[in-house]
Amino acid sequence: MPTPKLNFTRTEFDQRIAKTRAAMLDGGLDLLIISDPSNMNWLTGYDGWSFYVHQCVVLSLYGEPIWYGRSQDANGALRTCFMDPANIIGYPDHYVQSTERHPMDYLSAQLSNRGLAKGTFGVEMDNYWFSAAAFASLQTHLPNARFSDATALVNWQRAVKSEAELILMRQAEKIVGRMHERIVDKVEPGIRKCDLVADIYDAALRYDPDIGAGGDYPALVPLLPSGADASAPHLTWDDEPMKSGEGTFFEIAGVVKRYHCPLSRTVFLGKPTQTFLDAEKAVLEGMEAGLEKARVGNTCEDIALAFFDVLKTYGITKDSRTGYPIGVSYPPDWGERTMSLRHGDTSVLQENMTFHFMTGLWMEDWGFEITESIRIGEAGPECLTNVPRKMVVKD
Amino acid sequence: MPTPKLNFTRTEFDQRIAKTRAAMLDGGLDLLIISDPSNMNWLTGYDGWSFYVHQCVVLSLYGEPIWYGRSQDANGALRTCFMDPANIIGYPDHYVQSTERHPMDYLSAQLSNRGLAKGTFGVEMDNYWFSAAAFASLQTHLPNARFSDATALVNWQRAVKSEAELILMRQAEKIVGRMHERIVDKVEPGIRKCDLVADIYDAALRYDPDIGAGGDYPALVPLLPSGADASAPHLTWDDEPMKSGEGTFFEIAGVVKRYHCPLSRTVFLGKPTQTFLDAEKAVLEGMEAGLEKARVGNTCEDIALAFFDVLKTYGITKDSRTGYPIGVSYPPDWGERTMSLRHGDTSVLQENMTFHFMTGLWMEDWGFEITESIRIGEAGPECLTNVPRKMVVKD
Repeated sequence: MPTPKLNFTRTEFDQRIAKTRAAMLDGGLDLLIISDPSNMNWLTGYDGWSFYVHQCVVLSLYGEPIWYGRSQDANGALRTCFMDPANIIGYPDHYVQSTERHPMDYLSAQLSNRGLAKGTFGVEMDNYWFSAAAFASLQTHLPNARFSDATALVNWQRAVKSEAELILMRQAEKIVGRMHERIVDKVEPGIRKCDLVADIYDAALRYDPDIGAGGDYPALVPLLPSGADASAPHLTWDDEPMKSGEGTFFEIAGVVKRYHCPLSRTVFLGKPTQTFLDAEKAVLEGMEAGLEKARVGNTCEDIALAFFDVLKTYGITKDSRTGYPIGVSYPPDWGERTMSLRHGDTSVLQENMTFHFMTGLWMEDWGFEITESIRIGEAGPECLTNVPRKMVVKD
Repeated sequence: MPTPKLNFTRTEFDQRIAKTRAAMLDGGLDLLIISDPSNMNWLTGYDGWSFYVHQCVVLSLYGEPIWYGRSQDANGALRTCFMDPANIIGYPDHYVQSTERHPMDYLSAQLSNRGLAKGTFGVEMDNYWFSAAAFASLQTHLPNARFSDATALVNWQRAVKSEAELILMRQAEKIVGRMHERIVDKVEPGIRKCDLVADIYDAALRYDPDIGAGGDYPALVPLLPSGADASAPHLTWDDEPMKSGEGTFFEIAGVVKRYHCPLSRTVFLGKPTQTFLDAEKAVLEGMEAGLEKARVGNTCEDIALAFFDVLKTYGITKDSRTGYPIGVSYPPDWGERTMSLRHGDTSVLQENMTFHFMTGLWMEDWGFEITESIRIGEAGPECLTNVPRKMVVKD
């Protein structure tokens, strides 16, 4: 049997499981079926690009978690999870994308064999990786189970970062700093977007002895729309040359062992328009106001409202949320999908929560992003990077 | 209003919609709710990394498709879809990751407003992007709709590629060739995996005037596990140096405007072991036998069985499927999720279907991949790349 490569101590995994079980007891759950790859990784260490087929971690109130997935991926689970091989279950390949049988049918049978087919089961109802068909299969094949929505139950346990997690996030922070330096160095009128993305990946991935790590893949690809395309926050690159007289935001993240540090900056090629100069002033002042509120005991809403209030004085209305928690993540999202920095979210900030303060503006025909990734501290926030907080202007 | 950037003619989109409507009529469907980003793109042109929030395309039997998604992403839809702005519907941001309201609640209201709330609705029950909660919301808010499973209905319409699609796939083919050349050039004992991945992305992305395109992001990140880790097909890279005496497979794809051409090769650093030499012989001979069957009128199973039969003569049993259709795709999968090259799949091969003949072996403590992407022709298959079909040996 291979010795698994774990990024955290067994004690840390035990603590994570204990926290999760406490939440299960609070919710009256006997068993959790966890489909979110970020949650699977956090609970067991599992790391692989296998989420394109059905898989999950099963956690009951006793014993080790069970990894469940495609047979060929069980080899990956043996290499990355801490559990005993008896708790790694692979399903046969003819369950993959079959119209006759569903991988969750087989899971139900396995749970029955282990005496785990009865009780109140938490499932992640609104997770990408828990399809309507997966739920229908479980409902059919586990007639003695009651199902309860446990969307984000594990995600919430991830909110406060451990010291070991912060070490990885601080490496990721240095990588995203290196990426923004590279952008400033390379961006100019005429450079093709796809070529600039090649440079961004180069800075994102290469091993750096000063950092002590190479980069991992980001949960979102680099976003760098220009001009009016920047009014749409999620257009990806093309192979056209960049133009003078346009603003471009760069929304990117450094990643180490699946831990993310996102950071956005805006570059203007040529002489910035008054619109961009005004946006920069509003956003920077708003960020100062928001960061001032980013301290233990305040709420998510406090940060957002402070930011929005300043924007309003500049005549800018932002109605989208202005940030979310970050940490370990898999595509398609580097957010933790629990709290949102927005009106009405009164979640209380705790020490070592980490957020992307996502202060982007996407207007009628332009877009602007200067953001910070922050750690909540007792006395105030720690900005994780030291990338200059300003618009980059290049002629 | 921006002029959308379309990669295909309006006529081609009309043909795609007509094919899909014929399938809807066959299935007795009045309306389709399409959550798969690849299907959304194929039907409307929509292209953006916004699938981390709920979105869909609604197609009834008459009129234009409707794009539905987050308000801020509607700007992206206006820029990439052919439809009239009246058929781009954004939902307010407080529906995003809310515990109180679901984006599909709002969709139901919109459909009611348009007189589209009644009839038989096809939904992609087993798609990542159609969660159990999304389905529950539709069931609650559309009491006059009957729901029918339309998983893969649109995917099937994508199977035979148009000439315009093949042009993009042929550009992607040239890019994946360039990526493998780069690997052969750079791989050596001591190079860190993350550094080699930076080189792979560089070759994948940079604009090439001879190809007439730069690269787009792949639906799976590069996979390059070595030694015993290669027994697990989906482990991603780390930042460790490569070692002599190990085999590594490289599973990568060239991508142009979301169209994929995947191709795998295996590199052995140092003198290959007998195991690898035998695997190479078996796989190459098996591929010849499989390719011989890859012609119009034969079935998916024919290709697979021809390949498996040769493997058996070498004492190798492969029980996982050995290929799948390819084309336009988004993470997490570059397969089309319809046919599988395996025992029991009697789907008939048609001209201009395209497959990744995925002949990988993942054994107890090693892995080996030499694969081809092919187009089905009348007289036989066209291998899309001219990358030498052999194991690369480097000292």
